[in-house]
Amino acid sequence: MRATVVGGSGYIGGELVRLLLGHPELDLTYVTSNKYAGRPLRAAHPNLRGRTNLSFTPDTEVGESDVVFLAVPHGAAMKEIDRWAALAPRVVDLSADHRIHDTGLRERYYPGGVPDPEWLAKFRAGIPELNREDLCGATHIAVAGCMANAAILALHPLAAAGLVTGTALVDARTGSSGAGRVPDEGSHHPERSGVLRMAKPHGHRHMAEIIQACGVPVYMSVTAVEAVRGVQVVCHVMLPGQLTERDVWAIYRDAYRHEPFVRLVRERSALHRMPEPKLLSGTNFCDIGLSLDEGGEHLVVVAAIDNLVKGGAGNAVQCLNIAAGWDETTGLDFIGLHPV
Amino acid sequence: MRATVVGGSGYIGGELVRLLLGHPELDLTYVTSNKYAGRPLRAAHPNLRGRTNLSFTPDTEVGESDVVFLAVPHGAAMKEIDRWAALAPRVVDLSADHRIHDTGLRERYYPGGVPDPEWLAKFRAGIPELNREDLCGATHIAVAGCMANAAILALHPLAAAGLVTGTALVDARTGSSGAGRVPDEGSHHPERSGVLRMAKPHGHRHMAEIIQACGVPVYMSVTAVEAVRGVQVVCHVMLPGQLTERDVWAIYRDAYRHEPFVRLVRERSALHRMPEPKLLSGTNFCDIGLSLDEGGEHLVVVAAIDNLVKGGAGNAVQCLNIAAGWDETTGLDFIGLHPV
Amino acid sequence: MRATVVGGSGYIGGELVRLLLGHPELDLTYVTSNKYAGRPLRAAHPNLRGRTNLSFTPDTEVGESDVVFLAVPHGAAMKEIDRWAALAPRVVDLSADHRIHDTGLRERYYPGGVPDPEWLAKFRAGIPELNREDLCGATHIAVAGCMANAAILALHPLAAAGLVTGTALVDARTGSSGAGRVPDEGSHHPERSGVLRMAKPHGHRHMAEIIQACGVPVYMSVTAVEAVRGVQVVCHVMLPGQLTERDVWAIYRDAYRHEPFVRLVRERSALHRMPEPKLLSGTNFCDIGLSLDEGGEHLVVVAAIDNLVKGGAGNAVQCLNIAAGWDETTGLDFIGLHPV
Amino acid sequence: MRATVVGGSGYIGGELVRLLLGHPELDLTYVTSNKYAGRPLRAAHPNLRGRTNLSFTPDTEVGESDVVFLAVPHGAAMKEIDRWAALAPRVVDLSADHRIHDTGLRERYYPGGVPDPEWLAKFRAGIPELNREDLCGATHIAVAGCMANAAILALHPLAAAGLVTGTALVDARTGSSGAGRVPDEGSHHPERSGVLRMAKPHGHRHMAEIIQACGVPVYMSVTAVEAVRGVQVVCHVMLPGQLTERDVWAIYRDAYRHEPFVRLVRERSALHRMPEPKLLSGTNFCDIGLSLDEGGEHLVVVAAIDNLVKGGAGNAVQCLNIAAGWDETTGLDFIGLHPV
Repeated sequence: MRATVVGGSGYIGGELVRLLLGHPELDLTYVTSNKYAGRPLRAAHPNLRGRTNLSFTPDTEVGESDVVFLAVPHGAAMKEIDRWAALAPRVVDLSADHRIHDTGLRERYYPGGVPDPEWLAKFRAGIPELNREDLCGATHIAVAGCMANAAILALHPLAAAGLVTGTALVDARTGSSGAGRVPDEGSHHPERSGVLRMAKPHGHRHMAEIIQACGVPVYMSVTAVEAVRGVQVVCHVMLPGQLTERDVWAIYRDAYRHEPFVRLVRERSALHRMPEPKLLSGTNFCDIGLSLDEGGEHLVVVAAIDNLVKGGAGNAVQCLNIAAGWDETTGLDFIGLHPV
Repeated sequence: MRATVVGGSGYIGGELVRLLLGHPELDLTYVTSNKYAGRPLRAAHPNLRGRTNLSFTPDTEVGESDVVFLAVPHGAAMKEIDRWAALAPRVVDLSADHRIHDTGLRERYYPGGVPDPEWLAKFRAGIPELNREDLCGATHIAVAGCMANAAILALHPLAAAGLVTGTALVDARTGSSGAGRVPDEGSHHPERSGVLRMAKPHGHRHMAEIIQACGVPVYMSVTAVEAVRGVQVVCHVMLPGQLTERDVWAIYRDAYRHEPFVRLVRERSALHRMPEPKLLSGTNFCDIGLSLDEGGEHLVVVAAIDNLVKGGAGNAVQCLNIAAGWDETTGLDFIGLHPV
Repeated sequence: MRATVVGGSGYIGGELVRLLLGHPELDLTYVTSNKYAGRPLRAAHPNLRGRTNLSFTPDTEVGESDVVFLAVPHGAAMKEIDRWAALAPRVVDLSADHRIHDTGLRERYYPGGVPDPEWLAKFRAGIPELNREDLCGATHIAVAGCMANAAILALHPLAAAGLVTGTALVDARTGSSGAGRVPDEGSHHPERSGVLRMAKPHGHRHMAEIIQACGVPVYMSVTAVEAVRGVQVVCHVMLPGQLTERDVWAIYRDAYRHEPFVRLVRERSALHRMPEPKLLSGTNFCDIGLSLDEGGEHLVVVAAIDNLVKGGAGNAVQCLNIAAGWDETTGLDFIGLHPV
Repeated sequence: MRATVVGGSGYIGGELVRLLLGHPELDLTYVTSNKYAGRPLRAAHPNLRGRTNLSFTPDTEVGESDVVFLAVPHGAAMKEIDRWAALAPRVVDLSADHRIHDTGLRERYYPGGVPDPEWLAKFRAGIPELNREDLCGATHIAVAGCMANAAILALHPLAAAGLVTGTALVDARTGSSGAGRVPDEGSHHPERSGVLRMAKPHGHRHMAEIIQACGVPVYMSVTAVEAVRGVQVVCHVMLPGQLTERDVWAIYRDAYRHEPFVRLVRERSALHRMPEPKLLSGTNFCDIGLSLDEGGEHLVVVAAIDNLVKGGAGNAVQCLNIAAGWDETTGLDFIGLHPV
């Protein structure tokens, strides 16, 4: 299957290229970038040195292929969806544009452009663990946001079991790559290095996806931390009581027993008691751990992912694997490093 | 006034030495370490190179002075309190041994040794912002724990105003120096570097101090982050409603208006919207910021400190300054660095 | 082919396990560790969670297999070489024990134990780029040291062309994983974090390998830097003159044109002008770049590797691939991440 | 004495402000910034929060004072030197504009603008350890560049003794703050984090100052490393022979015995065997260490500084202290932190 990556010079775009170069069912045909047009891919992604001779194509010169990945900023995907959709029968959108189906949530968290309702209706949610059947044979897929994806995987089993009382609290911590490739004052190394910067204590727009997917109210705070890759979400949920930690583990085991990329972390050693994002760099895993207070009410659920893989490019590939009927793990077998 | 630092080779001990060397009212007389006995202070604290010719004294050879600082592990201070107290009329204990006056809290969070009740009764809480008057003329002071101190300064104004409904949630993030000087598997650089390690999702013993000082129930989770110095606590509190963010700021302004080391952070720029520990390295400041959700119920209060200074050695000096009747800021004037 | 990893709980051992799990020609049969005996591999290597059910075997219970990898400390391999060699017809030694064939160099840089001369004679140098033919069909292979391997790949083309005048200078920079898994004062995170620690300005023992392989005298300084993985060597060589930078590039191109894992870095952009270790984490690449001073005499050659892969486990797998007649890149196809 | 800082929103400017706020002989009168004009200093330097009520003044509105510090980009100081010099009888220039008196060196390393020869002649070199007498009573001072200053202090004693044979090699490692405050692709955190980026293997312009001050030829390579503050230079010098390490130490002791800010580091422990920049953050120290190869020819001299203090603002204050006849260490007493 011939594949095109639109927005290939960004970080998510580069990660898609890395994964597609190792995917046996996909041939990378076009990688677009207006800024790098004509230059080799390694000019933007030095890790690709020696692994491909492909160069960037300007957006205007892209031809047909079998699947188009849109790794573009929010707003840009819906703006030219007709054009991209005309170039391939399958579209995998990694922007936020076709994720939110609830009008109220979209207006509140994504004011500004509105996607075409017909196109929006065609896009299926790119969260394999929640809607795998829906993804089989899908032609248009909207991949989840990075922090949203981690939070949804952490909260959904509880929410589905009706165990979230009150408002869940999502405390997200994120590396610098999540903010993309364009330098600004906040990403300047002397300022960004070593931070615990809570730029967004309330109202982060990834809340829209979490609320839509889990059906429970949430508060969300986001802290930028010293890391390039990686997202960790710490969810605080008040349980109705009567449950032991063992009961809660059973709920998560039932939910994720057959999932190839969700790993339940249940170690006794303090060193690896909870999911650690740095161990997941480059992998498509979402690690999940939990702890219930001895009072039986306050539950902490922690999830970790690589924001560019399970929080973006890897999840997109997993979704396409399902849609195309390939083995779901194709091209996603990197184990992750330790130490790192 | 002649000063002795017991446990001078540890990180808190080293920080005390650094501060006392620059304190015009104090003469550093003895710095004890059995491990480094006879060696120059710079052997343990290379920053002191060229600034002092003092060497470490073994514990058994310490003579009299006017104030003894106990920078020893928990349990060690109470074990030999008679001996240390006999060497100076003033004792500033930086261990946890004489902090907890509530028997129930102590049994739950500090099982094991029990301090002598008579000695315990003599120690006053080393939290200037809460009990400055009590500290005037004090001879025995128990300095607060690092994360506890930050959390107490973040929560106390609300708790004192009766505005904490339900259980407050304290999410603490800590650098590696907080775990002390003895290497172990968890502090080994390849393992510790770049972590978001939630080793303690529930039941951290600093809860005892927070509950004792604020009188409200709390949950506390602790995450080790990539930093050497620094503690940040993010407190989530449900307000009874009816308050605006402006109202909450007024409460904090009233509480801390005259505090020399509490700074209220109220910036609009996302870059420095909330307290950032790295800016406080070496300083005695506690920076506090907050955000109220537009619904008016969910309040986030963030406090940051240098765990070795305002979370230990600096706070100890501030307490002694008050007790001795000196200017409270004596020896604590370092501004902090930017960028860093 | 059944494979055994002796010393599987160390960092090189864990990296071998990671690579062998993904190697289609090798079945991991035994992974030894006395400390972790009976526990699952993930207890030492949390990245392996969910990828293998294998547990550690104590050294005394290892049975036969087709190849034994010795990932043990220097001195330990030669001590029990008879025992390990009896368990498999092929031995790949990643310790330093069977690397140095020159007695003078060994006595100077590795005083202490002496390997059995008969065993020593059987071991072929594990540096594919220098002695690929020698490795074809080899049964006993001594893999090069991490910094040595990078320095040899950087210097050998020049040395072979007789262009190194005087003594070459090797300035090596290394991450913390190179010092292994056992915590000590120097690896304690508060001390190790952010260092530029030149612990070894002269006389590092990796010099022995460089001198042996290149046949030129060298000085070597080693600086520990803020990184977990990664080695970068900066070699300063005085050329005889008369050469342009283009001429020097031609020498390197000739040397490495057909090498699957050596990449020549020749970018104009300052951002990626020279090899950058962080881009190589997890990969088996050695990136090489150079710059000739406009005077034509002072040449800087820079090489970078992941010390645990091309500087250890990956190089071992590459050597075995050659020895066994498999495609040389089998199991070594990870591209590396960007950003990271 | 009233002081003005021109270019006060940059990193060197901010560091000047921090130091001047704690300097008992100086009153900060104006801090200029066109970008931040009218805003409080803490908008650019959040560490100053609560320590000053001063706001930034646009360049055009600066009035008279007793000393003007020019913390402006290279080229900008000479362009308006008449204007700044008219506002105060003393000018301390921290840019490179008035450093290079040798026309050949300036044309080679600083092509572009040429300073007015009359002004240039008035400026004395701001390197107290080399020309303290010249600085007494000086009214116009050109402070040395950060890496240059460290290299000069490392090499000068040897050069003055005629012991540098051949060309000295200066391998400099620098933190990110040295490149200033303006974000670009290279300073973007995901790219800059964890680098060993040798952007400049030859021809760095700080060579001009080193050659001018030491009178010996040098090669210089610069590697950007993971740090915000800090410069370390590793100098490789071939000695004529006949000297022991003890002899070399004697030369350095003679040179720096009475220097308040040069510390000779001569530890046996590998942990602190050589100067470590991170220990110097915020201080005005230059730490120097050395090692002579057992062959007696190859000498390694290592110097470390905080690039913004001894490599800029602190050195400027030290020079002014000398020029004004104050105690040379006034306002420069910060000891530095450990751990950090």
